[in-house]
Amino acid sequence: MQKFISSFQNQAIKRVLQLQEKSRARKKEQAFVVEGQREISLAIKGGYELRELYYTADLFPAENVKNLLSSVSSPVAITEISSEVYQKIAYRGSTEGVLAVVGSRELSLQKLTFKTKNPLILVAEAPEKPGNIGALLRTADAAAVDAVLIANPRTDLFNPNIIRSSVGCLFTNQIATGSTSKIIAFLKEQKIAIFGAALQASVPYHTANFTGRSAIVVGTEATGLSQQWLENTSQNIIIPMEGVIDSMNVSVAAGILIFEAKRQRR
Amino acid sequence: MQKFISSFQNQAIKRVLQLQEKSRARKKEQAFVVEGQREISLAIKGGYELRELYYTADLFPAENVKNLLSSVSSPVAITEISSEVYQKIAYRGSTEGVLAVVGSRELSLQKLTFKTKNPLILVAEAPEKPGNIGALLRTADAAAVDAVLIANPRTDLFNPNIIRSSVGCLFTNQIATGSTSKIIAFLKEQKIAIFGAALQASVPYHTANFTGRSAIVVGTEATGLSQQWLENTSQNIIIPMEGVIDSMNVSVAAGILIFEAKRQRR
Repeated sequence: MQKFISSFQNQAIKRVLQLQEKSRARKKEQAFVVEGQREISLAIKGGYELRELYYTADLFPAENVKNLLSSVSSPVAITEISSEVYQKIAYRGSTEGVLAVVGSRELSLQKLTFKTKNPLILVAEAPEKPGNIGALLRTADAAAVDAVLIANPRTDLFNPNIIRSSVGCLFTNQIATGSTSKIIAFLKEQKIAIFGAALQASVPYHTANFTGRSAIVVGTEATGLSQQWLENTSQNIIIPMEGVIDSMNVSVAAGILIFEAKRQRR
Repeated sequence: MQKFISSFQNQAIKRVLQLQEKSRARKKEQAFVVEGQREISLAIKGGYELRELYYTADLFPAENVKNLLSSVSSPVAITEISSEVYQKIAYRGSTEGVLAVVGSRELSLQKLTFKTKNPLILVAEAPEKPGNIGALLRTADAAAVDAVLIANPRTDLFNPNIIRSSVGCLFTNQIATGSTSKIIAFLKEQKIAIFGAALQASVPYHTANFTGRSAIVVGTEATGLSQQWLENTSQNIIIPMEGVIDSMNVSVAAGILIFEAKRQRR
């Protein structure tokens, strides 16, 4: 039977709050929270395991719940909650009316599969700001890159800020995380050319050839790519900077490089 | 004589706070606040009028004040403040130790001057998020575009969030604001080809020719360019989207288009 919860003290509600707020809770339970109809749909489509669904009928009628879950075959625990409780556990306030607890996924290099002979891969080293990670994932989706690899991640990818800023692209990309060493070893083993976006380099990016198996690697805004990356690339490339300030948003830089590769491949 | 202020109740301090927080106060006084040594330097370099300087010696020694102002010939009212007062009026907390009240500038189309025969201009229609505007200004600086035009601005460009996220690129770009009608009229009068980034268009951006006098116009993430722009462009161009979600960060899209224009011009 379907439950109804209107108390903030309810254990299930407290647990959802923990999953929203604490990386440790997400790791322990191997689960995270997805808010909003569109994002939940994309998680389902991306093959993520939907475990629990919470909705408030004021904002999200029971009929919508049925539609949302129409393609899910495994059992989902559905709970109606009061709009006050929803507002308390929802990261984005009262805009959506529905959220789900979803099983997280091991984002390992070993699970990657490439559908094309000449994969194009975006690698970001130690990106920090959720907004930048979200923008990187949106760009990767738009370009339909074969995979996004996060080297030495400093942020839990299942945190609500990233899910939100990626507008669900966390679920549409093939993603893996790993140490810089492991990712470099993986790319070399796969015979994928590594193009490192360097703050100092003699080769302008648009003169490089991205038509073969290619990985484009971007570093942090503050310090650029680490020495370990710079020494292990096939070629280091630069976006020529002509302004007063040597500064570009990391997701903008990645977009320029990835779409130059796409242009060359057309 | 130089003053020292340690009281939150001081009228000058209250006024700085108003300038930080209220667009109306900035408009009324035709002034705004710039925080940080680098940003203040860039404002000076950009020809902005420095009126007052506040510093806390704990974080920013008097000697640095002297250096910072070495190239300023007009009189600047210098006030030392306690670190508690600094923390209260500084938007970025206690990281910098110095802030300035700077005269704002009329960002009018009439004041634009182009140093090149074939200017490249970035136009953004009604951008909203300060983070996106900051990233646009950083991209524009990196590409050394001739001007950035903000059509139908929804945000006061001198707000502290924009100054911060632009890392000072607000001062390194030639910027103008105006209604969409006025900017279209200006571009046509200047015989500058208008390329509108459209969500639906038949011409992929990389097949357009940006080598002449060109303006690249991007709209909002939510709705794209307005009908008025789309009907007044020389050509509408599209960034081909191959992903699951039709979504790209506006500053990433602008970066891809501007740097394709730069590539063609090299």
